[in-house]
Amino acid sequence: MRFASDNTSGAAPEILAAILKANEGYERSYGADAAMARVTDLVREIFEAPHAEVRLVATGTAANALAIATHVQPWDAVFCHTHAHIAEDECNAPEFYSGAKLVLVPGAHGKITPDALALALSTTGESGVHGVQRGMLSLTNVTEAGTVYTPAEIAALTALAKARGIPCHLDGARFANALVATGATPAEMTWKAGIDVLSLGGTKNGCLGVEGVVLFNPAKAWELELRRKRGGHLFSKHRFLSAQMEAYLTDGLWLRLAARANAMGQRLAQGLRDRQAHVPPADANMLFPEWSAGHHDRLEAAGAVYYRWTAPEGREKARLVASWCTTEAEVDAFLNAF
Amino acid sequence: MRFASDNTSGAAPEILAAILKANEGYERSYGADAAMARVTDLVREIFEAPHAEVRLVATGTAANALAIATHVQPWDAVFCHTHAHIAEDECNAPEFYSGAKLVLVPGAHGKITPDALALALSTTGESGVHGVQRGMLSLTNVTEAGTVYTPAEIAALTALAKARGIPCHLDGARFANALVATGATPAEMTWKAGIDVLSLGGTKNGCLGVEGVVLFNPAKAWELELRRKRGGHLFSKHRFLSAQMEAYLTDGLWLRLAARANAMGQRLAQGLRDRQAHVPPADANMLFPEWSAGHHDRLEAAGAVYYRWTAPEGREKARLVASWCTTEAEVDAFLNAF
Amino acid sequence: MRFASDNTSGAAPEILAAILKANEGYERSYGADAAMARVTDLVREIFEAPHAEVRLVATGTAANALAIATHVQPWDAVFCHTHAHIAEDECNAPEFYSGAKLVLVPGAHGKITPDALALALSTTGESGVHGVQRGMLSLTNVTEAGTVYTPAEIAALTALAKARGIPCHLDGARFANALVATGATPAEMTWKAGIDVLSLGGTKNGCLGVEGVVLFNPAKAWELELRRKRGGHLFSKHRFLSAQMEAYLTDGLWLRLAARANAMGQRLAQGLRDRQAHVPPADANMLFPEWSAGHHDRLEAAGAVYYRWTAPEGREKARLVASWCTTEAEVDAFLNAF
Amino acid sequence: MRFASDNTSGAAPEILAAILKANEGYERSYGADAAMARVTDLVREIFEAPHAEVRLVATGTAANALAIATHVQPWDAVFCHTHAHIAEDECNAPEFYSGAKLVLVPGAHGKITPDALALALSTTGESGVHGVQRGMLSLTNVTEAGTVYTPAEIAALTALAKARGIPCHLDGARFANALVATGATPAEMTWKAGIDVLSLGGTKNGCLGVEGVVLFNPAKAWELELRRKRGGHLFSKHRFLSAQMEAYLTDGLWLRLAARANAMGQRLAQGLRDRQAHVPPADANMLFPEWSAGHHDRLEAAGAVYYRWTAPEGREKARLVASWCTTEAEVDAFLNAF
Repeated sequence: MRFASDNTSGAAPEILAAILKANEGYERSYGADAAMARVTDLVREIFEAPHAEVRLVATGTAANALAIATHVQPWDAVFCHTHAHIAEDECNAPEFYSGAKLVLVPGAHGKITPDALALALSTTGESGVHGVQRGMLSLTNVTEAGTVYTPAEIAALTALAKARGIPCHLDGARFANALVATGATPAEMTWKAGIDVLSLGGTKNGCLGVEGVVLFNPAKAWELELRRKRGGHLFSKHRFLSAQMEAYLTDGLWLRLAARANAMGQRLAQGLRDRQAHVPPADANMLFPEWSAGHHDRLEAAGAVYYRWTAPEGREKARLVASWCTTEAEVDAFLNAF
Repeated sequence: MRFASDNTSGAAPEILAAILKANEGYERSYGADAAMARVTDLVREIFEAPHAEVRLVATGTAANALAIATHVQPWDAVFCHTHAHIAEDECNAPEFYSGAKLVLVPGAHGKITPDALALALSTTGESGVHGVQRGMLSLTNVTEAGTVYTPAEIAALTALAKARGIPCHLDGARFANALVATGATPAEMTWKAGIDVLSLGGTKNGCLGVEGVVLFNPAKAWELELRRKRGGHLFSKHRFLSAQMEAYLTDGLWLRLAARANAMGQRLAQGLRDRQAHVPPADANMLFPEWSAGHHDRLEAAGAVYYRWTAPEGREKARLVASWCTTEAEVDAFLNAF
Repeated sequence: MRFASDNTSGAAPEILAAILKANEGYERSYGADAAMARVTDLVREIFEAPHAEVRLVATGTAANALAIATHVQPWDAVFCHTHAHIAEDECNAPEFYSGAKLVLVPGAHGKITPDALALALSTTGESGVHGVQRGMLSLTNVTEAGTVYTPAEIAALTALAKARGIPCHLDGARFANALVATGATPAEMTWKAGIDVLSLGGTKNGCLGVEGVVLFNPAKAWELELRRKRGGHLFSKHRFLSAQMEAYLTDGLWLRLAARANAMGQRLAQGLRDRQAHVPPADANMLFPEWSAGHHDRLEAAGAVYYRWTAPEGREKARLVASWCTTEAEVDAFLNAF
Repeated sequence: MRFASDNTSGAAPEILAAILKANEGYERSYGADAAMARVTDLVREIFEAPHAEVRLVATGTAANALAIATHVQPWDAVFCHTHAHIAEDECNAPEFYSGAKLVLVPGAHGKITPDALALALSTTGESGVHGVQRGMLSLTNVTEAGTVYTPAEIAALTALAKARGIPCHLDGARFANALVATGATPAEMTWKAGIDVLSLGGTKNGCLGVEGVVLFNPAKAWELELRRKRGGHLFSKHRFLSAQMEAYLTDGLWLRLAARANAMGQRLAQGLRDRQAHVPPADANMLFPEWSAGHHDRLEAAGAVYYRWTAPEGREKARLVASWCTTEAEVDAFLNAF
């Protein structure tokens, strides 16, 4: 009954096997390994983007910060949701790497609304040299609230950004989960919906630690490489990043792992709703139901592990996250204890 | 006959086994894993430093940049060798993280001389607010030239820095190799010789990707953690960093691996000298002999892989690095082809 | 009828006379001039703060950015009003100098409310290493909306900050106007109310270009000097900054100039209210009344100069600012044209 | 007998008169003043560069840091003389604004030699993503040693930079003195000799505090404006900067002031040489002769004021600088006291 985060689970067997295989013999370092070339081919094929470029790092914060820094200037604004990971959980890394200012855009259930974005876009960058300039839009899918944008919803937001001439980033720390939840293709969820650069998450979904920065505008690749090195994020034994990402994207492993996580998340949500619990919209593997502190205590006493966040009126929110290795038995044990 | 770098070799079996073992079950993320506590204990014991703190990252550049940034101000000078890795091979990462300026100090065979350091210390920071202030000394052992400082040599340099009131960093990307070369203990090579913070390399010496920042002044630990997170270097599945470092430091594995690398490096050096090649001082696993371009071509044609650097008078330097997995057969094949 | 800003007015005769006098003969550069010592004495006397330190720069943005950077770390949060000058009008200068993140705190009429600040303080810095840490409170007096905090109101806010262990900054670009509006002494408005560092504005109130950073914690003075130099804000012919500030603070000139500006601002506000215009609270020399676009056009046609800002329902806000040199005739001409 | 620096002198009467005149009435702020348009026209005419752009700041460090930051990336190298002002006297401001690394290039008497520059250009930027990239060349004229580059010497150096595809900056803190010393026109000394951006000094040569950044590539103007604002260097009462620069450039005032300073510097040099003192090459208003400490003491006792720098063999260097207001009487008094 471990639902604290998808990053408390380990790596999938296929990923570990790839690590072991990659270990054989000598290999060129710093990204010149043969597996990296295969990763690039896989990304281009899967995203139907024959000119896309991808570079690998080991953490999601690095992927986001580098992706953003590569597309903005230090006097720019990056528009993101009030509770975006880049705003709340990265200790200023995006600002450190880019120099830009995050402009927070509200919206229920973790999703920016077109109206709120239009307002933010119209009130930022209007005072000439005195204020920050419009720089970039950054969306997150799966959102921080566990909801999922459809490609159409993403396209509606990126259209507003594009009308102002600014590029769009997608923080896809749980990108595979978003694909599974919507049935969209990788292309539909990204460049076809106006996304210019993607943080392609692997770590939470069954890898040890690997994230891709996928550039649909390949002209930025060299700058991204320089920023990666300058940030200390270029692996010398890069083969171990490549091996993870190659295995992850091969034969749909990433989608199978995400499908498992989402199914377990949905089983949990349904079971809680069946038991009259209030579960806000939850489209993938993460939910934030709410109940009394006493009930939380009882669940913990029964062995459940998850985060508790304070909520109004003496109640508390639970943060429950299923992962690629969550079992039906775990879910059902939790529901039985409920 | 692969001598391009110790980072073209893979990971040692013991390290891989530790990764596999660490994968079992759920584990707390972001450094709160049980193995990390054991790593701290190991470091304190091995370094005879019961209050030392250690934090893990995945690259040597990250370790160096964070170690330095934690000890200087943006208006400070960091004194380092003209050819230090932080000066030549990290694409401004130390400056990016710290804001400080690197002041280059010369010295033959990769070693700063006390006279050169004394001169740099006396001519920097003497113009009040107009120039940079004295900030830190950063040494490298094994040096970039393949030589090794003895603890006494380190102490002579740190004494000059301490007399100016500034702390001292040791870039130990090949720290185990330096220990093996000198027979010094970890304590003798570090805090007993005036070192305040160590970049403790694992990657080049048989790990997949792990480096420790060891703080002998534990008061800096929280700042280091914040800088690590802000730089995107805090691993969510941190257990995989801990597992590597734990295995590396357990039962002297790190020293055994380094001993192998050094032995192979010395065998190579001796063999070349026996064959009348000019081999500058080389104390560990890395050497920089020099011969004609034509001879380089012949060696490459015979299957040798290594870097060639231009040198005066139409000659070229070879950069030959042995690693934990270099075999006598490889060395001898190279010598036979010579 | 020029009400666009107090910075469209020139310098007061006393300030110009001081510049001319300061020009005589040779003088030590970079802040070692004799007049600077007199400025320090004046500040200490006027603020009843015998250990305070003051350093001069030429712009308000520089004063704010340096004052803040000297008191926070790059992973900190600076709490300020949603519409603070540092948030909206300085093109990321505070972030550039400090690395910190601005956390916006709402409040009507430009004033942060204690409840809003308490909420922001309790929800920031609660996620360990993942989020920014609580760093500093920055207030503005006169506020951006033209209202004025009383010392008691400031003390109520700084008490909340102090309870969290963080220092407090006051952006006093119009500090003299705030003093005049409240009748408070400089000490009452600053350190007696919990302010640790003040941006003491001179430019808008009759100087050519000079602002002081007043440190009530003198331990920060050397860091401030280094940051000033590193930012390119240390004047070589510093005597011309000192001369302005000395004249400004001598014999109450600063308060006389502000009293004139405030009186003209209040005359304008009262006259507009007498004419049934809606004038939101305006305590000093700046007001933001609202009327129809057509009426704005008529006023401009009559020769009035000021900023127009869009407002809901087809109306527009006027930004009207009186300065030390605004005359009753100008105000009355505007009111007659209204 | 005040020869400490040209910045210990005051402002020329014409400059002060311009300040007084500029003070009349209201004027638009933040660079939109009418005088600024005239400054732009003057610069274009004087430099025979009809598309040049110029922006004003108050300090030389700001001008240099902004000029450089506008032309390089944070992973770039800026090549400059070992003793350049940007390297030794600006407390990391160029690095703070640009993120770039200064690569020091040696040369006797303050002048970079083509050979030394060619070597630095060929050994920097050759290691791919690992090292800094070639970014910019920054020259200084008058040099820090008091010598002056001819346009041909500048062109020889910029040609090497241009062959590597990088732009060229001229730190002209004493640009007028260099023009007078060589007889070159402003165009010959800058864009005709390969300079892309100039720091055009006014402060040392009779202004209160004003420097221009002259862009011969006007496409960079908007970025320069944003960087200036973000650095806190945009004056609200900008008219006072414009007024200084306009008066300075009108009717050759700048050249007359520099001619006086140079003439006094040369009179001093010649007089010292006549008295058998060792005076290294000195082409403008600044010289660095050397004599015994005892002789320095005697000169100081006689009332001479200047900087003393330690030199080998118990001797000391004098730093003697003449300014626009140095008189023949002062020079002769010094020589008599010698």
